[in-house]
Amino acid sequence: MAYKDEQLIEEKVFKDPVHRYIHVRDRVIWDLIATPEFQRLRRIKQLGTTNLTFHGAEHSRFNHSLGVYEIVRRITTNFADRERWDREQRLLCLCAALLHDLGHGPFSHSFEKVFKLDHEQFTQQIILGSTKVNEILKKVSADFPVKVADVIAKTYSDKLVVSLISSQIDADRMDYLQRDAYFTGVSYGHFDMERILRVMRPMDDQVVIKSTGMHAVEDYIMSRYQMYWQVYFHPVTRSAEVILSKIFQRAKVLYEDESYQFQLEPTHFISFFEEKVQLSDYLKLDDMIVYYYFQQWQEEKDAILADLSYRFINRHLFKYVEYNPDPQINAGMELYQLFKKAGIDPDYYLVVDSSSDLPYDFYRPGEEEERLPIHLLMPDGGLKELSRHSDIVEAISGKKRTDHKLYFPKDSIQRIEDTDLKKRILDILYGKE
Amino acid sequence: MAYKDEQLIEEKVFKDPVHRYIHVRDRVIWDLIATPEFQRLRRIKQLGTTNLTFHGAEHSRFNHSLGVYEIVRRITTNFADRERWDREQRLLCLCAALLHDLGHGPFSHSFEKVFKLDHEQFTQQIILGSTKVNEILKKVSADFPVKVADVIAKTYSDKLVVSLISSQIDADRMDYLQRDAYFTGVSYGHFDMERILRVMRPMDDQVVIKSTGMHAVEDYIMSRYQMYWQVYFHPVTRSAEVILSKIFQRAKVLYEDESYQFQLEPTHFISFFEEKVQLSDYLKLDDMIVYYYFQQWQEEKDAILADLSYRFINRHLFKYVEYNPDPQINAGMELYQLFKKAGIDPDYYLVVDSSSDLPYDFYRPGEEEERLPIHLLMPDGGLKELSRHSDIVEAISGKKRTDHKLYFPKDSIQRIEDTDLKKRILDILYGKE
Amino acid sequence: MAYKDEQLIEEKVFKDPVHRYIHVRDRVIWDLIATPEFQRLRRIKQLGTTNLTFHGAEHSRFNHSLGVYEIVRRITTNFADRERWDREQRLLCLCAALLHDLGHGPFSHSFEKVFKLDHEQFTQQIILGSTKVNEILKKVSADFPVKVADVIAKTYSDKLVVSLISSQIDADRMDYLQRDAYFTGVSYGHFDMERILRVMRPMDDQVVIKSTGMHAVEDYIMSRYQMYWQVYFHPVTRSAEVILSKIFQRAKVLYEDESYQFQLEPTHFISFFEEKVQLSDYLKLDDMIVYYYFQQWQEEKDAILADLSYRFINRHLFKYVEYNPDPQINAGMELYQLFKKAGIDPDYYLVVDSSSDLPYDFYRPGEEEERLPIHLLMPDGGLKELSRHSDIVEAISGKKRTDHKLYFPKDSIQRIEDTDLKKRILDILYGKE
Amino acid sequence: MAYKDEQLIEEKVFKDPVHRYIHVRDRVIWDLIATPEFQRLRRIKQLGTTNLTFHGAEHSRFNHSLGVYEIVRRITTNFADRERWDREQRLLCLCAALLHDLGHGPFSHSFEKVFKLDHEQFTQQIILGSTKVNEILKKVSADFPVKVADVIAKTYSDKLVVSLISSQIDADRMDYLQRDAYFTGVSYGHFDMERILRVMRPMDDQVVIKSTGMHAVEDYIMSRYQMYWQVYFHPVTRSAEVILSKIFQRAKVLYEDESYQFQLEPTHFISFFEEKVQLSDYLKLDDMIVYYYFQQWQEEKDAILADLSYRFINRHLFKYVEYNPDPQINAGMELYQLFKKAGIDPDYYLVVDSSSDLPYDFYRPGEEEERLPIHLLMPDGGLKELSRHSDIVEAISGKKRTDHKLYFPKDSIQRIEDTDLKKRILDILYGKE
Repeated sequence: MAYKDEQLIEEKVFKDPVHRYIHVRDRVIWDLIATPEFQRLRRIKQLGTTNLTFHGAEHSRFNHSLGVYEIVRRITTNFADRERWDREQRLLCLCAALLHDLGHGPFSHSFEKVFKLDHEQFTQQIILGSTKVNEILKKVSADFPVKVADVIAKTYSDKLVVSLISSQIDADRMDYLQRDAYFTGVSYGHFDMERILRVMRPMDDQVVIKSTGMHAVEDYIMSRYQMYWQVYFHPVTRSAEVILSKIFQRAKVLYEDESYQFQLEPTHFISFFEEKVQLSDYLKLDDMIVYYYFQQWQEEKDAILADLSYRFINRHLFKYVEYNPDPQINAGMELYQLFKKAGIDPDYYLVVDSSSDLPYDFYRPGEEEERLPIHLLMPDGGLKELSRHSDIVEAISGKKRTDHKLYFPKDSIQRIEDTDLKKRILDILYGKE
Repeated sequence: MAYKDEQLIEEKVFKDPVHRYIHVRDRVIWDLIATPEFQRLRRIKQLGTTNLTFHGAEHSRFNHSLGVYEIVRRITTNFADRERWDREQRLLCLCAALLHDLGHGPFSHSFEKVFKLDHEQFTQQIILGSTKVNEILKKVSADFPVKVADVIAKTYSDKLVVSLISSQIDADRMDYLQRDAYFTGVSYGHFDMERILRVMRPMDDQVVIKSTGMHAVEDYIMSRYQMYWQVYFHPVTRSAEVILSKIFQRAKVLYEDESYQFQLEPTHFISFFEEKVQLSDYLKLDDMIVYYYFQQWQEEKDAILADLSYRFINRHLFKYVEYNPDPQINAGMELYQLFKKAGIDPDYYLVVDSSSDLPYDFYRPGEEEERLPIHLLMPDGGLKELSRHSDIVEAISGKKRTDHKLYFPKDSIQRIEDTDLKKRILDILYGKE
Repeated sequence: MAYKDEQLIEEKVFKDPVHRYIHVRDRVIWDLIATPEFQRLRRIKQLGTTNLTFHGAEHSRFNHSLGVYEIVRRITTNFADRERWDREQRLLCLCAALLHDLGHGPFSHSFEKVFKLDHEQFTQQIILGSTKVNEILKKVSADFPVKVADVIAKTYSDKLVVSLISSQIDADRMDYLQRDAYFTGVSYGHFDMERILRVMRPMDDQVVIKSTGMHAVEDYIMSRYQMYWQVYFHPVTRSAEVILSKIFQRAKVLYEDESYQFQLEPTHFISFFEEKVQLSDYLKLDDMIVYYYFQQWQEEKDAILADLSYRFINRHLFKYVEYNPDPQINAGMELYQLFKKAGIDPDYYLVVDSSSDLPYDFYRPGEEEERLPIHLLMPDGGLKELSRHSDIVEAISGKKRTDHKLYFPKDSIQRIEDTDLKKRILDILYGKE
Repeated sequence: MAYKDEQLIEEKVFKDPVHRYIHVRDRVIWDLIATPEFQRLRRIKQLGTTNLTFHGAEHSRFNHSLGVYEIVRRITTNFADRERWDREQRLLCLCAALLHDLGHGPFSHSFEKVFKLDHEQFTQQIILGSTKVNEILKKVSADFPVKVADVIAKTYSDKLVVSLISSQIDADRMDYLQRDAYFTGVSYGHFDMERILRVMRPMDDQVVIKSTGMHAVEDYIMSRYQMYWQVYFHPVTRSAEVILSKIFQRAKVLYEDESYQFQLEPTHFISFFEEKVQLSDYLKLDDMIVYYYFQQWQEEKDAILADLSYRFINRHLFKYVEYNPDPQINAGMELYQLFKKAGIDPDYYLVVDSSSDLPYDFYRPGEEEERLPIHLLMPDGGLKELSRHSDIVEAISGKKRTDHKLYFPKDSIQRIEDTDLKKRILDILYGKE
């Protein structure tokens, strides 16, 4: 039997808190899960620093990747019931679903921003490069790795397949909203996925939603909205991200400063500092490694690196105030000077973070070119873009909320000995102008 | 105001998936949570290697410790409603609940067995030693740290306080059963805690249960039984534990072998190898550190250390068969020789694991001296030990199931070139005798 | 001890699927629950005919009334924690919460429309009239019944008390949304009530919401929106309501027709037909009585009454099409004539139902005078009306969707022998114009 | 296309709180649901008087019947995936599942006991008699109604089919345990049905359970045990059943007493009193009818009938004490005489109720001949009866708890004017002997 058709003798199941069970029958899927590249996702938290705000959010990308696979499995099974769906096309969907996050590194958001990386490119490299994952995919057919990579890159010719993995209502989002809600314990994030799966219909180049299921989709859009503002953009989480970025930034500066001698050399990060990252370097990184360095760096001689590392490890985060750089630019500039005067390096300790820099993922048809909007299949057979039919979605989709916050170490400020200086800083920060 | 009476201006809450919200009003509790010693529990998984079997089980001891605190908070609030409960006594319960697991290290079960340690002693040391936790507790009163340590050690004079933290139906068990069920996603582990809390009554030296609540307690005992056999003693988890133990054992051997030169020196473990562990060494350890070493050790020159590390990191676990050392001793001895012959070191690759070596925690009144059995408060005011009144509990409490398994690397066996030798090994293992 | 201060020796609890437990400590509450007038609510379904669409929705108003009581109990306990809340004021809230729906009759919506009744007036009468409920309330104090009635009528002087029972985010709505979602099994209707209760703050004349809880309130508003369109206004439920109304209408016509002799006289309904309803007549009615008549009336000589009763009892409902009386008036008039010609009495079998006739309960500040809008308590201590601060709420609150449907017995039409006539009717209905 | 093969154009779904969705594709099933005989089940509560104890338990047998159908649908779909399962055999299972409770009348347990009826015989009659259900089943094939009736009667030749509908772990029990737990809101009743369905294997004459699923089955057995003692045998529910029985008993006595003139003649019950029940009489009965009579009978001249009816309608139930007729016979006899003396007719107001008279449904292999025990399919292909393999099940299955209670109207006793007599009665009842 061809490898691609091989079935496990006994179906394997994973107990999953979100989807109850994850079912695997295909040998290919089973083998992919066992690769080191996929197992590595166990060591990368799905939500980076969010667990410092919501202590339940300690789940990994391994967890989520299985979930996305399972949702796509259910969708393709539904489709198969209805009509012919080519076996290889189905396997392609399953593999792309399983592997779509393979290139994520530790704390992707901050890490990529500091080092100007893109996890999607690493996903491509892992699939196409010299890896166990690639070996397995090639056993399906010589061009199968390329196909999988194309689906994930959204360049694959069959747009229906692409839309399962990435569209405005794809398996990725449906999994993470539910999963992140489950692990954080928040009451948002629930919607009737079973209903959505039932009203999905495959069309030529996309999956559409029967209009009778519109309200379930509205609920999904609302969940997404609430999860972003309540969980993903939580200001405390962002405080930890700010510190994380500053640690990497500082380590790089010290690495470039030849006079500085690390107690623990940043071996794992050198290729990142030098912007010559090899796949093998990248694959060696995970949360554990980063934490190891931060733990050790608490005892570095450089006060800034040691302090920031201590803050991160022990959750002594920065405080924040609302801050809009546009009208408040003068206040910001004054603070910068005052921090310097107080001996608190503002390049590391006075940070503006804007939600617009975050991976923003609301429903805005037409704005994001790469994401297919959601189309409803009307009773007359026509298609209608969701926000044209749903008041609620229309209401949300137009809005773009920006949210700027200024982060700073309040504890350090309170230790400033010059009381006038301290008072002036606090007055500006807390609006006693 | 005395520090012990200080309340937060605004109650703080943690969103918790199990108890919905965790409420903190006492300044002491808030300060304890912020200590490095307590934050360290974020980096120690509650269930060690269980996440290799149940991928959801990635939650930390930080998570669980907050949960135990919250349950005790609810119990003491209930009690306070009913009668006078001294404020300091209440604070003592809360602190002991919060801190009871403070001394856990990474993968406690295996780690302690290999290095002959006891996490309870470290809990004592952290509370009494030179730590931030101790500093805060001392601010309550000079003897407060000792009291907290005594409660956790079960030597405290007021046995009612002790029984909240450790008895057969204490806050610790009630939290972990529910929490571990939640994160693994299994359907066991549910019981009506709200009802149990309502039927708890403080007596002179223990908490008893009003007999009208017996069925809720039966459900709790059953949950415990099922969680042990379904989750905690799961053979795949034990396979990972076996490998973990063998890694530590091997590293120690190599460390003691002066001719061996590590690529990554086991700095963090040396005091353990030498059995001269200081509290400061211990506090530096967490899951992240262990994983860092294992990651690196995959590339050690020593084949056994490298292989075992690779297996652990990439979840290439050992397989197992049922094996009872008593009647099957000869088979075991033959296997030992055959493994040697095949070049697979049986000291590392042929391991018997017995459930009786696991921390066994069923309900057996009278057997475990340190654990108070559960007493029902009968309508006539008398007390009755639970298993005397409940058929179900009686049925379970008598049983002691032992369960021996033999673990081995099936993949290595299948690579043995001598086909007769290979066949003989497989025949013994898989019972083709 | 004064009756109003009497506490039960042992707190009583009701197991409740929505709020887990309902707690009763006050003797007054316990006695009110035991009255025949309150027990009668067991025989009145909360959602009238909805169970013909969602089979789980068989729960009674008794169920819901306990739930509203419990929510108010929790709110007042929270408030009591914070500040002085007068004991009698608290009891007043609890009684008003428990009794607010006391005057509901069977299938209130249709019944009241046909007979021009108002359940709120009956609630007043039961509280103030010669009933067991009144007897108990009077034992609290002579003017207590009037106070309770005033709170329910929203005329009570202390608007804070009124706002707990009826405002845009009162205990009534919070209970029924969750309860109706639970029993129907839909995934809408969930919101984080625990959080909302925590951010409620009593002000002089209303309960306000701390602005940090805004997102939980948004979720509540969304749930409400979804429950209305998905459950409460479901067209199949409205079909059953249409038939129900027509049965009452027909029975009244026959009663007024002296030549008609009922097999089962409509004894229970006579005072309604004659518009001389006494409280005692009203209290004798419940779902069971109505069903009894309908059951029997299936065998009445009058073909219309018999047929409509059969349809209701056996769920042979009318079908429907979208129909807008404004542009489609001519089609409607033609149908009316064609139905007559076909011998299907259009006064009973051709019915327009508009959602605007339904008790519409979206969030529209300013439009409904009697409902207080939701105010957020801002960090600066000011108040802000919710829709001014929340994009989502603003989006929903402006909309007024109208939805007209034309109901008719498709089966009867299909039995028309004159095929041209039948075809013409079907063509108009199904838009083959 | 043959009627039995007809599929609905679009699958129909019912929203179900327990199984989320109930799916119907077969025209036969759809038509059966629409029959008056099946719709009648909407008017019969699943748990009779249990809602007087657990107010949520207002769900109907309609509800449950759909649930059983859905579970069998899932099982047969699983089987179909694995091997050939004849289409008609599948339809037979589905119909038997849907219709298995069709013959239930209102408050079956008490009603059948008083009138010596058996709902299973009525189920047979409805299926085989002159009904809409029979018409539809005959359209499948002439002998199909007999087959369906045989499956329900457990006399059908293919025991595998029978075992799906009635065995120790059949779809009936799996639905009602979960459903009754859901609607009452108790925390018992949960087990992992999805897992059980996955480990079910069809054998020649029964469904067996793969031994790897044993723990899920243990959980199911435990749930059953707890539901019986916590919910089904609840003493307050039994109090209402006692009153119900006594009402019927009294009405029969009065009917047979020619001198008594009912205000409301017991028309619907006459054939029951005379033991000449026709199917058509039976089908006219439902909860609504019974409630109607009880409501009216509150005003009957006969004081006993009026009082008992009042008690039932307004939930003024009897109190109870533990009472064992065997040692306590003398006390019982004295009470009988004392009640007479006090003018409280002991034939109606002093009632012993034993749990052994209740439909007892624990797991006892071998005791109940008609119920197949549960067999585990061992890894070696052999079968093993569950209680031989599971300690917990063995523990429970041997036990037969009997539980006798004596019911009486405490309020009436407290109104006895002869204080010595009253004291003596209360002393005996409350054990001040």
